[in-house]
Amino acid sequence: MYPFKQGSFAPRNGWYVAAFCNEIGEPLLSRWILNQPVVLYRKADGTAVAVEGRCPHRHFPLGDSKRVGDAIQCGYHGITFGADGKCTFVPSQTTVPGVLSIRSYPLVERGLWAWIWPGDPALADESLIPTLQEIGYRLDAGFHAQPFYYTHVSGRYQLLNDNLLDLTHLGYLHGGSIGTADDAATPEVRDQDARRLRSRRTMVNTPPTPAIRQRFGHEGLVDRVSGLDFFFPGFHAGVGDSWVAQGLPDAGKPLADSRVWHAVTPGTRHTTHYFFAMGSNDRDGVEFMVDYLKPVIAEDVFATEAIEKIISTMDEVPTELMLRSDTTAVMGRRVLQAMMDAEAAAQPS
Amino acid sequence: MYPFKQGSFAPRNGWYVAAFCNEIGEPLLSRWILNQPVVLYRKADGTAVAVEGRCPHRHFPLGDSKRVGDAIQCGYHGITFGADGKCTFVPSQTTVPGVLSIRSYPLVERGLWAWIWPGDPALADESLIPTLQEIGYRLDAGFHAQPFYYTHVSGRYQLLNDNLLDLTHLGYLHGGSIGTADDAATPEVRDQDARRLRSRRTMVNTPPTPAIRQRFGHEGLVDRVSGLDFFFPGFHAGVGDSWVAQGLPDAGKPLADSRVWHAVTPGTRHTTHYFFAMGSNDRDGVEFMVDYLKPVIAEDVFATEAIEKIISTMDEVPTELMLRSDTTAVMGRRVLQAMMDAEAAAQPS
Amino acid sequence: MYPFKQGSFAPRNGWYVAAFCNEIGEPLLSRWILNQPVVLYRKADGTAVAVEGRCPHRHFPLGDSKRVGDAIQCGYHGITFGADGKCTFVPSQTTVPGVLSIRSYPLVERGLWAWIWPGDPALADESLIPTLQEIGYRLDAGFHAQPFYYTHVSGRYQLLNDNLLDLTHLGYLHGGSIGTADDAATPEVRDQDARRLRSRRTMVNTPPTPAIRQRFGHEGLVDRVSGLDFFFPGFHAGVGDSWVAQGLPDAGKPLADSRVWHAVTPGTRHTTHYFFAMGSNDRDGVEFMVDYLKPVIAEDVFATEAIEKIISTMDEVPTELMLRSDTTAVMGRRVLQAMMDAEAAAQPS
Repeated sequence: MYPFKQGSFAPRNGWYVAAFCNEIGEPLLSRWILNQPVVLYRKADGTAVAVEGRCPHRHFPLGDSKRVGDAIQCGYHGITFGADGKCTFVPSQTTVPGVLSIRSYPLVERGLWAWIWPGDPALADESLIPTLQEIGYRLDAGFHAQPFYYTHVSGRYQLLNDNLLDLTHLGYLHGGSIGTADDAATPEVRDQDARRLRSRRTMVNTPPTPAIRQRFGHEGLVDRVSGLDFFFPGFHAGVGDSWVAQGLPDAGKPLADSRVWHAVTPGTRHTTHYFFAMGSNDRDGVEFMVDYLKPVIAEDVFATEAIEKIISTMDEVPTELMLRSDTTAVMGRRVLQAMMDAEAAAQPS
Repeated sequence: MYPFKQGSFAPRNGWYVAAFCNEIGEPLLSRWILNQPVVLYRKADGTAVAVEGRCPHRHFPLGDSKRVGDAIQCGYHGITFGADGKCTFVPSQTTVPGVLSIRSYPLVERGLWAWIWPGDPALADESLIPTLQEIGYRLDAGFHAQPFYYTHVSGRYQLLNDNLLDLTHLGYLHGGSIGTADDAATPEVRDQDARRLRSRRTMVNTPPTPAIRQRFGHEGLVDRVSGLDFFFPGFHAGVGDSWVAQGLPDAGKPLADSRVWHAVTPGTRHTTHYFFAMGSNDRDGVEFMVDYLKPVIAEDVFATEAIEKIISTMDEVPTELMLRSDTTAVMGRRVLQAMMDAEAAAQPS
Repeated sequence: MYPFKQGSFAPRNGWYVAAFCNEIGEPLLSRWILNQPVVLYRKADGTAVAVEGRCPHRHFPLGDSKRVGDAIQCGYHGITFGADGKCTFVPSQTTVPGVLSIRSYPLVERGLWAWIWPGDPALADESLIPTLQEIGYRLDAGFHAQPFYYTHVSGRYQLLNDNLLDLTHLGYLHGGSIGTADDAATPEVRDQDARRLRSRRTMVNTPPTPAIRQRFGHEGLVDRVSGLDFFFPGFHAGVGDSWVAQGLPDAGKPLADSRVWHAVTPGTRHTTHYFFAMGSNDRDGVEFMVDYLKPVIAEDVFATEAIEKIISTMDEVPTELMLRSDTTAVMGRRVLQAMMDAEAAAQPS
């Protein structure tokens, strides 16, 4: 489906964020992931697990079922599955058919996030998860990282990835808050490797964003670095740093200094889980941004949902017109399409 | 459609409950039945009738039209149809075209229910309607029968039939009210004939259901008989009897003694009319159960709608895993599928 | 789609009402027209314009974007389009690709309406727009014309055209207000030319409509002329004149004397824009009717939406049964189908 080849939805063999760690607890949490119902919960020993969210007997939602110890007892006929997915109890018979099990998904907690591997578990290599160092998540005492918002978006996931892979939108969609015209006008420097696609813009002697003005009362020019690293298939780690511009008193004095993290996870074919988080040595700055960024993220959600509505209503998705600024998004799409092509090729026909 | 063959929706040649008798009166009642709009009303002489709910001229809903005596005058252009479906008046011309008529459905009131035959009227044999005796509806003065709830369910009808054909769910979906683990653990005795499929469970020295505890204050063991007769294609008549268990003081003393009736009628392809009623010699018990069972039936509706949502969202309905407890449901499905196959074979191609 | 051939939706080469003139101003107005997103606004010099409502870069809704002078700056990445549809600015690059433009639709204001040509602009001949004289819109000082209601209807547009092309519904759907049984019983006189299809009914010594009774306190018989001219493809101009009947005191005294205008514009495939307006020398009458006709138009909208719901739910649209009174509607449909057929034939394959 657009913007991918017909029949291509999302790569399955990759780590996606299923939830913020702090969303997972004793209660069962239901979430569609890559068009499969999934249940997340934390075992008595504190381990977070993810299992299939549909009872294989009669399709009842296991997320609306009951925990019995570390197992889930289906709310319909009481069939019970351990956290490993194996059936342990069938109330209506004394033996448990060997085939009776649900999928158990590899799930790893790292940083603020619980990472799920929806594809072949045999390929679930943890070293493919972005490391904390890679994403700028520091473990030193002064660093404060915080999950901001989980949003369930009514639009296909790639629209959000496209959004994040083209930050020329900062000065327009977010022109009243976190961007200026220079975010679009400044050339981008890219760097791609097997794990991630990096894009950076360095702006020198550039007007401050409204956010910097409002938070620091700084009206003068600044220097800024902005950009994101897209870790395939669905995590974007970014920087948003500003300093008082050269030539001004206090030149080089740090203003904003933050790490932002966007996780984009396909839900159903037309819905997306969007997780936004932030970290900084400036704890007050993080607290300030929790409220400040709420309408900003809402703008991205609006764009995604409005575009989904347009392309779903039209008879067919019209051809999109590419600009130079789309290079990064196109590179990112190519990586995902290649992952999907490889999975399709590996599929026994 | 699932769980039937592709292209199979519902048998047409069979008696379905269209409404509780007490729902039908002077005002026009609109209801989709087997994906056809139907209107139900009561003529001046008290006879209940069912006619097509769509004006054949311009598809206006006749249920949103106007009664003129025993006829319906289409609310759009005033074309008028008698209770037999024949057009009696066309306001814009002096003659009535012979072809201008709507379907009039065989409709029979028996017990609490108005039974409709959506298929070929020539085949509408009233003796195929379950008799009052067969369904345990007694006419003696002490017996009190009462329509409880009509619910419009957002799920395909067979999910509700499946629910009723596998009462191992009583101790789980309804574990807090009308079932115990023994409802699942006890073997089932089945009996099938041309009219109905019977299933019964006899539980001896079994814990009382929460309902029995709450209503009778009886905490000791009981003996119970539970089960339903599925009258094809959409009516389930059941028993729920309990006695104080042998070996206890008052052994054999009747506790609950009730007949329950579930009617399941296909509405549109993804909606269902669900009629629940109850009867007993214990009038106070019936009154008690009107409130008591409301959340219980809501649990069945929840299960149906949640399963519908899961199987409608997934790319295709996944294979279901059968257990021994599904035998009755599978037998029931086979009967309906055979009815549909026979109808398809009889269809002129 | 019904009631047209499969694959036929709506003629594109024709003038449709996009909006009442007074709906178009400084703010951007979004409207789907013939299943394309369109934006309407008024330039600084007062000229109303209509352009494509989707940015060709990433499909963002231009109607949710920002005006910059007479141009629209896409709310997403800031790409800017002049009122002629040509791209004038791309924030992320210094040159503007020649192919970067949006459609600019021919738009003409005439009378109360802004007329749009969704098809080939080369064919947009203004002389095809109904003239004020043709629709009975007088420019003399005594004449008062007023836009009444814009309604977004959840039903396919032809259902509304069918409604207006068969006024036998007046005495039934609107029997309590603007029609009597004679609206159906009276034969129709038709006249068709290349521009429009006219239908008139002349009723002599006929009961007054409830509206006439209520407004004029006139209970006696009247003479009436009623009918509409359907200007292809989507405008209906009508008369509703009444006089005190011959033989009564005050015979021939004018009662109602009004022009009504219904514009029907396809929105998406299953939604329609419906514009109703009225004009008369009797300004008080017009004021009276603004409130009086609100429920009347709501009846037409109800009929349209109820029929849409029925035919969309059924497995297929059933055959409709034709009456003599459908002659005008059938003639109207034929004209639209012929327009669509001609457009399909002209399409390069």
